[in-house]
Amino acid sequence: MKVAIIMGSKSDFEVIKDGIDFLEDFGISYEVRALSAHRTPDELEEYMAYLEKENVDVIIGAAGKAAHLPGVIASKTILPVIGLPIKSSTMDGLDSLLSIVQMPKGIPVATVAINGSLNSAILATQIMSLKYPVLKEKLIDYKKQMAKKVIEDDMYIKSNY
Amino acid sequence: MKVAIIMGSKSDFEVIKDGIDFLEDFGISYEVRALSAHRTPDELEEYMAYLEKENVDVIIGAAGKAAHLPGVIASKTILPVIGLPIKSSTMDGLDSLLSIVQMPKGIPVATVAINGSLNSAILATQIMSLKYPVLKEKLIDYKKQMAKKVIEDDMYIKSNY
Amino acid sequence: MKVAIIMGSKSDFEVIKDGIDFLEDFGISYEVRALSAHRTPDELEEYMAYLEKENVDVIIGAAGKAAHLPGVIASKTILPVIGLPIKSSTMDGLDSLLSIVQMPKGIPVATVAINGSLNSAILATQIMSLKYPVLKEKLIDYKKQMAKKVIEDDMYIKSNY
Amino acid sequence: MKVAIIMGSKSDFEVIKDGIDFLEDFGISYEVRALSAHRTPDELEEYMAYLEKENVDVIIGAAGKAAHLPGVIASKTILPVIGLPIKSSTMDGLDSLLSIVQMPKGIPVATVAINGSLNSAILATQIMSLKYPVLKEKLIDYKKQMAKKVIEDDMYIKSNY
Amino acid sequence: MKVAIIMGSKSDFEVIKDGIDFLEDFGISYEVRALSAHRTPDELEEYMAYLEKENVDVIIGAAGKAAHLPGVIASKTILPVIGLPIKSSTMDGLDSLLSIVQMPKGIPVATVAINGSLNSAILATQIMSLKYPVLKEKLIDYKKQMAKKVIEDDMYIKSNY
Amino acid sequence: MKVAIIMGSKSDFEVIKDGIDFLEDFGISYEVRALSAHRTPDELEEYMAYLEKENVDVIIGAAGKAAHLPGVIASKTILPVIGLPIKSSTMDGLDSLLSIVQMPKGIPVATVAINGSLNSAILATQIMSLKYPVLKEKLIDYKKQMAKKVIEDDMYIKSNY
Amino acid sequence: MKVAIIMGSKSDFEVIKDGIDFLEDFGISYEVRALSAHRTPDELEEYMAYLEKENVDVIIGAAGKAAHLPGVIASKTILPVIGLPIKSSTMDGLDSLLSIVQMPKGIPVATVAINGSLNSAILATQIMSLKYPVLKEKLIDYKKQMAKKVIEDDMYIKSNY
Amino acid sequence: MKVAIIMGSKSDFEVIKDGIDFLEDFGISYEVRALSAHRTPDELEEYMAYLEKENVDVIIGAAGKAAHLPGVIASKTILPVIGLPIKSSTMDGLDSLLSIVQMPKGIPVATVAINGSLNSAILATQIMSLKYPVLKEKLIDYKKQMAKKVIEDDMYIKSNY
Repeated sequence: MKVAIIMGSKSDFEVIKDGIDFLEDFGISYEVRALSAHRTPDELEEYMAYLEKENVDVIIGAAGKAAHLPGVIASKTILPVIGLPIKSSTMDGLDSLLSIVQMPKGIPVATVAINGSLNSAILATQIMSLKYPVLKEKLIDYKKQMAKKVIEDDMYIKSNY
Repeated sequence: MKVAIIMGSKSDFEVIKDGIDFLEDFGISYEVRALSAHRTPDELEEYMAYLEKENVDVIIGAAGKAAHLPGVIASKTILPVIGLPIKSSTMDGLDSLLSIVQMPKGIPVATVAINGSLNSAILATQIMSLKYPVLKEKLIDYKKQMAKKVIEDDMYIKSNY
Repeated sequence: MKVAIIMGSKSDFEVIKDGIDFLEDFGISYEVRALSAHRTPDELEEYMAYLEKENVDVIIGAAGKAAHLPGVIASKTILPVIGLPIKSSTMDGLDSLLSIVQMPKGIPVATVAINGSLNSAILATQIMSLKYPVLKEKLIDYKKQMAKKVIEDDMYIKSNY
Repeated sequence: MKVAIIMGSKSDFEVIKDGIDFLEDFGISYEVRALSAHRTPDELEEYMAYLEKENVDVIIGAAGKAAHLPGVIASKTILPVIGLPIKSSTMDGLDSLLSIVQMPKGIPVATVAINGSLNSAILATQIMSLKYPVLKEKLIDYKKQMAKKVIEDDMYIKSNY
Repeated sequence: MKVAIIMGSKSDFEVIKDGIDFLEDFGISYEVRALSAHRTPDELEEYMAYLEKENVDVIIGAAGKAAHLPGVIASKTILPVIGLPIKSSTMDGLDSLLSIVQMPKGIPVATVAINGSLNSAILATQIMSLKYPVLKEKLIDYKKQMAKKVIEDDMYIKSNY
Repeated sequence: MKVAIIMGSKSDFEVIKDGIDFLEDFGISYEVRALSAHRTPDELEEYMAYLEKENVDVIIGAAGKAAHLPGVIASKTILPVIGLPIKSSTMDGLDSLLSIVQMPKGIPVATVAINGSLNSAILATQIMSLKYPVLKEKLIDYKKQMAKKVIEDDMYIKSNY
Repeated sequence: MKVAIIMGSKSDFEVIKDGIDFLEDFGISYEVRALSAHRTPDELEEYMAYLEKENVDVIIGAAGKAAHLPGVIASKTILPVIGLPIKSSTMDGLDSLLSIVQMPKGIPVATVAINGSLNSAILATQIMSLKYPVLKEKLIDYKKQMAKKVIEDDMYIKSNY
Repeated sequence: MKVAIIMGSKSDFEVIKDGIDFLEDFGISYEVRALSAHRTPDELEEYMAYLEKENVDVIIGAAGKAAHLPGVIASKTILPVIGLPIKSSTMDGLDSLLSIVQMPKGIPVATVAINGSLNSAILATQIMSLKYPVLKEKLIDYKKQMAKKVIEDDMYIKSNY
C-alpha cells in the first residue's frame, strides 16, 4: 500500500508534514514530491506515468493560489486523487479551495479542508482500507484514540469549571 | 460492490440523479436514502449501524445550506465519505460547500464541486476500484469516451469556425 | 436555572471564557463540556440524553470551521440552542458562521456573532428570564451599567476632544 | 404567551408567512407589525414601549439589506430578540445576515438562516416553552411529525430507487 | 461650520483620529462623541435632538461589525450623514461596510472606505463648502498639496530607478 | 441648485430613473449624461471642466463592474461626488461597490447602496440643503410622507393579521 | 497574425462569440478549439506542440469553474496567454476568476473580466499590434468608434432628460 | 524595448520590486513612476501623452483598494496594459482585484494575481517577445531555470522523505 504526495512548491512542506506523520504512524509507504503543474509540467507528466506502473493506491495533491495541481493529476489517472488546498498569502485559501473543489464533470478531486493535511492522509487511508482490511482496525483504533483525547480534554474542562 | 447515497432532503434527488445514472451504467449496486442529520438523527444513526454490517464500500452524503449530513455520517464510520454540496436558494452553495469541506482534524469528508453529483459517483467508483480491479478498466474506458466526446465537439467547432 | 455550554474543542475555551464570567456574575449555574460532534458523537449523544433529564434551560454550542456541533445538539432537543461561531485559522470565521446559522427548516439554532461569547451568555439569560423573572431585574441593571460605561467613555472623549 | 413579529417593510410579509402559520398551528398569539427602524423610528420606539407593558415573550425582527431592525429592537428591550435576515435583490442576503448577526458585545440578536421564517417561529416557541411547559409537548410532537415526514420521503425514495 | 463625529465605541478613536486632524487643520469646529446605537440608544437620541438645535452641518458616524450607528443617526435627521465602516477583529470590515452602505430606500448614508477616516472628514468639508465657499479655496489647495506630495514621491522614484 | 448625474453607460438609465423622479418632485434642476470614464475619458474631462464653471452643487456618478467613473470624477473636482454602484450581470454588484467605496486617502466618494438610485438623489438633496435651506422643509416633509406610507402599510398588516 | 482560442467546453462558445466577431472585423486569423485541460490533456498537449510550430501570436483560454485551462496552456508556452473566466451555474464566476488570475510565480495568465470575451479579443489585438503596426491604426479607430457610440448615447440622453 | 511601470502610491514599490528585478535581469529598459489616478490625474495624463510618443511597448499599472489606475491608463492608450492588484490593509486584495479585472467592454486590462509583481514583468516580456524575438530565447531559458529550481527542490524533498 502506497500513497504519493505531490506538492506544488517546496514551501508547502510545512503544511503537509502533519499528514506524513500520520502515514508513518500507520506504517503506510509514501513518496513525497515537489512538482509544479505550471513550472514542471513535463516532470509531473513523467511522474504520473511512473505512478501508473508503480502500485500506488492514492495520490494527494497539495497546492495554493490558482491550485491546478490536483486537477491536473486527476486528468492523468483513474486513481482517487485527494486535493489539499494550501492557504497562501492572500485570499485566505478561498482561491486554493475553489480552484481545487470546483472541478468540472468527469474529473473529480476529493477535496479536504484548507490546510487540512492530516485529513488528507486519513482520507487516503480510509480509501486504501477497502483493499487492505488491516487498515480498518487501525482506523477504528485511531478514531477511539481521538475520542479518548477529546474525553480527557472534556474531563479536564468538566473538573475545572 | 455497493455505494450508499444519503441525501438530506427528498428535494435533493433532482441533483443526485446524474450520479445514480453513472452507477447504473457501471453496474454498481447502490442504495438511496433521504435521511436528515437534523430531522431524523435516530434513523440516520440506525442506518449507519446497518451500513456497518452491510458490505457497503463508500457513502455519498448530499446536503444543502448548513450541510452537516456528510460530516455526521463521517463521524460514525471509517468508510470513505464523499460530500456533495447542494446549491440552495440563497448563498449560491457557498454555505453548503464550507459546511462540508471545512471538517476539523480527524474526520475528513471527500468533497466534490457544488451540485457535482456525477463527480461524486465517479469518485466513489475510483475509490472502489482499489478493491475491485474490474472497475479500473471501466474507468479507463469512461475516460476515453469522455475524451472522445470532447474531441467530437472539438471537430464540430474546428470545422465550423 | 442552568446553562449547558458545549464546545467542540478544548482550544475554544479561551473564547467562551467571557460568557462564563457573565453567567458567574449573574449567579447562573452552568456546566462546561468539551465534546466534539465529529470525534465524540456517542459521548455527545449521552450528554444530550443526560441534559434531557437534568433541568437545563438553554444550551450553548461553540464550534469552528465546519461547525456542526450546535446543529447536532439542536437535532436532539427541543430546548433553545444558541450557536457560537468560533473564528478558526482560515476563512475568518465565515465558514463557522454559515455552518451554524444556515440551518434547514425545522431545526433552528439561535446564532450570535463570530466569537461573540459574551452575547451567547446574555442571550441565554434573556431566554431564561421568561421562566425566572428575577433575571429580568438583573438584565435591566446590566443594560444600565453597560450604558453607564459608554457614557463614561463618552464623557472622557467629550472633555478631551 | 405572545410573540411580536416586526418586519422592516410590508414586502417582507411573503417571507414571514411561514412562521406565522406555525404560530397559528401552535395556538400561540402573535402581533404582526410593519415598522421600519429607519423610516419610522418613533413609531418603532412607541411600539417597543407598548411591548414592555404588554406581556410579550419574544420579539422577531425581520429585515433585509442593511438590516438594523432586530438590533434596534434589541437595544430597547431585555426580551429575547430573534433576527430573521431577508434576502434582497442584491448580495444574496449576505448583507442582511451580517447586519443582523454581527451584533457588538452586550446586545445579542438570536439570528436564524436567511429567509428562515419557519425557524424563527420555532425558535420563539422553544424559548417560550421554558415558561409554558405545554409547548414542550407540542414541540416534541412537531419534531416527531417532521421526522415522520422525512421517513415517508425516505420510504418513497427507498422503494423507487 | 461644525461637524459632529459619533463613534460607536471609544476604541474606534484610534481610527477616527486622522479625520479629526484634517478638520483641525482646516479650522473646522467639531464635536466628538462615543455613543452606541445599541448600548445607549436614549443618549444617542438626546444627542440627535441637541444636534437639530445646534447648527451642525454634517454628521459622521463611525462603527464596526453590525454597524447600525450611521443608519440610526440618519433615521433621526435630514442632515447629510457620513458612514465610516470600522474594521473589527473578524470579517475584515466587510460586515461593517455592508451594514452601513446597504441602507434601504429613503435613508441614505454617504459611505466611505473601510477605516477611511481621513476621507470622511474631507467629504464632510466638501459638503460644507456648498454653504461656506471659503472652504472651496482650502480644498483646492489641499488637493494641490496632495498632488505635490505624490509628485515628490514620483520624483524620488523616477530618479532612483 | 443643480445636480449633475453621470452614468457610465446608457443601459444604466433604468436604474437611475428613480433618483431623477425624486429630483423632479423636489424641483431640483439636473443634467443627465452618459459618459464613460474608460471609453470617453476626454469627453468626461471636458464635461468636468464645464461643470466647474456651471454652478453645479453635487455630482452623482453611476457605474457597474470595475466602476471607476465616480472616482475619476472625484479626482477632477472638489464638489461632493456621490457614487452609485450598479449591479451588473456577474458578481451581484460587489465589484461595483468595492470599486467605488474603497477610494484611497484624499479622494472620497460618498457611496450609497447597490442600485440605490433614490438614495443617491436624496443624499444629493440633503447636501444641497446646507446651501438652500428651502430644501430642509421639503426633506422633513418627505421623511414624514415616507413614515406615513410605512404607517399605512403597518395599519394594513395590523388589521389583517 | 493569428490567435488561437481554446475553450474548455463547447458550451462556452456562446460566450466567446463576441470576441470572435471582433477578430473577424479586424481581419485577424484565428483558430477555435474545444479542448479540456482535464478531459483531453493529451489532445491539448498535442495542440500546444502544434501551436509552437504554427506562427500563432497569442492564445486565449476560456474556461469555467475550477478553470485550469489557461494556466495549463501557459505552462506549455512562452506566448502570451489570455485567460477568460466563464461564469458557471454556481458561484457567479468567482471560482473561474480566482482559478485563472491567481497564478503562481513564473507562469502569468493575462486575465480579463468574467465573461469578458470581447475584451479578450481586444487585448489579443493590442498585444499583436506590437508586431503588426497596422493593427495600431485599427485599434485607434475602434477606440474612436466606441467613443462615438457613447457620445451618441450621451446625445440621446442629454436631449431627452 | 521598454516597459513603463506606474504605481498608484510610492508605498507600492516594495511589491513591484520583484518585477523590476526580472526586467533588469532580462536587460529590458523600464521607467518607474509613482502617479495616482486620483491624486495626480493631470500628471498621469501628461505622462500618458509622453508615453504615446516614446516607444514604450507595454505599461504595467499597480494599485490597491479601489484600484482605478490600470483602467484609467488603458482608457488613454491602445498599448497593452497589465494590471497588478496590490493587497491593502483591508479586504485582502479582493477590492483591488475586482476593481482592476472587471473592466467594461472595450477597455481590457491584462490582470495578474494579487501582489503578482514578478508575473506582471514576465507577461510584459512575453508580450514584447512578439516584436523582439530575442526575448523568446530568454523566456525559454528562464522557464527552464524555473523548472530546474523546482526539480532541485524536488530532489531535496525526494531524498529526505
